Amino acid sequence: MSKTYTIAVIPGDGIGKEVTPWAQQALEKAAEGVAQFTYEPFDLGAERYLRDGAILPDDELERIKKTDAILLGAVGDPRIKAGILERGLLLKLRFALDQYVNLRPSKLYKGVTSPLANPGNIDFVVVREGTEGLYCGAGGAVRRDTSAEVATEVSINTAYGVERVVRYAFELAMKRRKHVTLVHKKNVLINAGDMWQRIVDRIGEEYPEVTHDYSHIDAATIYLVSDPSRFDVILTDNLFGDILTDEAGAVVGGVGYSASGCINASNEYPSMFEPIHGSAPDIAGKGIANPTAAILSAAMLLEHLGFDDAAKKIHAAVESDIAELGSTTRTTDEVGKDILARI
Amino acid sequence: MSKTYTIAVIPGDGIGKEVTPWAQQALEKAAEGVAQFTYEPFDLGAERYLRDGAILPDDELERIKKTDAILLGAVGDPRIKAGILERGLLLKLRFALDQYVNLRPSKLYKGVTSPLANPGNIDFVVVREGTEGLYCGAGGAVRRDTSAEVATEVSINTAYGVERVVRYAFELAMKRRKHVTLVHKKNVLINAGDMWQRIVDRIGEEYPEVTHDYSHIDAATIYLVSDPSRFDVILTDNLFGDILTDEAGAVVGGVGYSASGCINASNEYPSMFEPIHGSAPDIAGKGIANPTAAILSAAMLLEHLGFDDAAKKIHAAVESDIAELGSTTRTTDEVGKDILARI
Ligand SMILES: CC(C)[C@H](C(=O)O)[C@@H](O)C(=O)O
Ligand SMILES: CC(C)[C@H](C(=O)O)[C@@H](O)C(=O)O
Repeated sequence: MSKTYTIAVIPGDGIGKEVTPWAQQALEKAAEGVAQFTYEPFDLGAERYLRDGAILPDDELERIKKTDAILLGAVGDPRIKAGILERGLLLKLRFALDQYVNLRPSKLYKGVTSPLANPGNIDFVVVREGTEGLYCGAGGAVRRDTSAEVATEVSINTAYGVERVVRYAFELAMKRRKHVTLVHKKNVLINAGDMWQRIVDRIGEEYPEVTHDYSHIDAATIYLVSDPSRFDVILTDNLFGDILTDEAGAVVGGVGYSASGCINASNEYPSMFEPIHGSAPDIAGKGIANPTAAILSAAMLLEHLGFDDAAKKIHAAVESDIAELGSTTRTTDEVGKDILARI
Repeated sequence: MSKTYTIAVIPGDGIGKEVTPWAQQALEKAAEGVAQFTYEPFDLGAERYLRDGAILPDDELERIKKTDAILLGAVGDPRIKAGILERGLLLKLRFALDQYVNLRPSKLYKGVTSPLANPGNIDFVVVREGTEGLYCGAGGAVRRDTSAEVATEVSINTAYGVERVVRYAFELAMKRRKHVTLVHKKNVLINAGDMWQRIVDRIGEEYPEVTHDYSHIDAATIYLVSDPSRFDVILTDNLFGDILTDEAGAVVGGVGYSASGCINASNEYPSMFEPIHGSAPDIAGKGIANPTAAILSAAMLLEHLGFDDAAKKIHAAVESDIAELGSTTRTTDEVGKDILARI
């Protein structure tokens, strides 16, 4: 008998609701015979907030903590002031569940048209720190709404937090092309940047087979456009990782093909898997969102639980679907069915 | 008799030394008959620092303050720990001279090959705040080099500082296509982001002809790749501006074509004009750096001093040079001479 896992499902807002069911179906089909899933749905996001004011009630967070993994769609709604759902729900989950590795692979699939004229062979992973930096929520404002207002944002970085994600990146590089690029802005952010660089240098010594180099964030945004195939594992902080992975998504033909895992690598709490695209209010409700990224996030979930073969089935299905049908205009359900048929 | 202006010249490091003389020559030639220049050279940068430990001595800063404008090459040298020259020289100048508008036009010239397959008509200006945000140098570290180290970076934002740069952006938009896009990350950096948005909304009301919208920094990096022609004036903070303008430089075919002005728009202190590329240690000394960006920074200097016609001569010369010869491989001096001949 195969083991049963409990998956928290948070479709969230906008197209999140449209693509998440396909992630579940892909999970089911790929894991047939090796694992079973029960789903615990959570009604969290804009609708819930507008209905009863709740964003992430404590008891629901406690229930989520008891699950084995989380599938998330997208969070964000134009009717709600920016930051409320993002910080109260999405970031609260990442922080409360100590998901310190935000793992974001970028791959240019055969059949996808990159906006770059000569994209080359793009296949890298961004390891983004997920629980520190400017995302801590430290900061404030005084004399709000006067001409003497001052607003601050504080980036908090700890050796504790940096070490564990650096180690993760080097371990990952060992399974890949053995190259780590630290991205920061150490010529300006000298305190945090210097600490990141020292920790990378020190931990790097434990991995003599892995080479590592450094790029400023501004230069890295150039390389993503001019020479993206130079990267294998990009290691960076929370904000720079947010920026780079969106640009990377564009470079590989759109964030519709990019999934991510918010990973608690010490397995104290469940990890969370989500497409990197947002709720896309402009196309929500039309049934035209591409579910591929959500389906790929199901593959990341399977890998995380140790089901590499099941994950590979999804990857192979997505690759063949894109190669054959990637250039056609299809609805969400059509893409979902086409991929499912290939798993 | 035409007026004489004193220009501080800081070639700085690496290719900065190779391209700055061409900026001076372009300045001379374009302003012939309308303005005269005397040059005050400053030996600042890596060589000086390695020789006598000086970065930007007070008396030299005072002399710089008395000039009418500054031509700067580039700052940064791999022999020196990241941050020392950048913060001690380049950023110190920007801050001490209160250069609160960092103006960075991006234009895809005819004859330049963009790395994008379908770049469209790219012509926008980034108005980057230059004296606040994460560049203030606020922050520190405790328990350095231990596993309990904590490093912080503080972004300081004031209504005073934001208002003046927002106003500048709207004024600039009035002379252009009348569209301002605020770029920030207000869904995470809620204190600073909210203040920026409120000030943009308020000042925007004074410019009913100018439309304005908002983009998160992560989404903006996507648009620069997928649809750069959507932008007219991008208004953003110090760090996001640093990141976006390098990506923009890549998208218009390389930072070799991008100039910038660090502008004290109230004219209390001299403004500074520099290419956005760095010192490029990898190609320094080879005589192959492209002086076009430095020459364009001379045009920005002329515009700043009110010599629009002279500036236009440089722009026209650069445009025709690139259109005819942009795809040929030329040395620094060849490009310099070719452009000079067209002024
Ligand atoms: C929605 C937002 C808070 C989030 C982030 O900034 O991390 C998103 O952009 C992402 O990358 O997952
Ligand atoms: C050298 C560095 C400090 C500088 C900056 O970050 O502003 C540079 O990248 C720039 O954009 O002018």
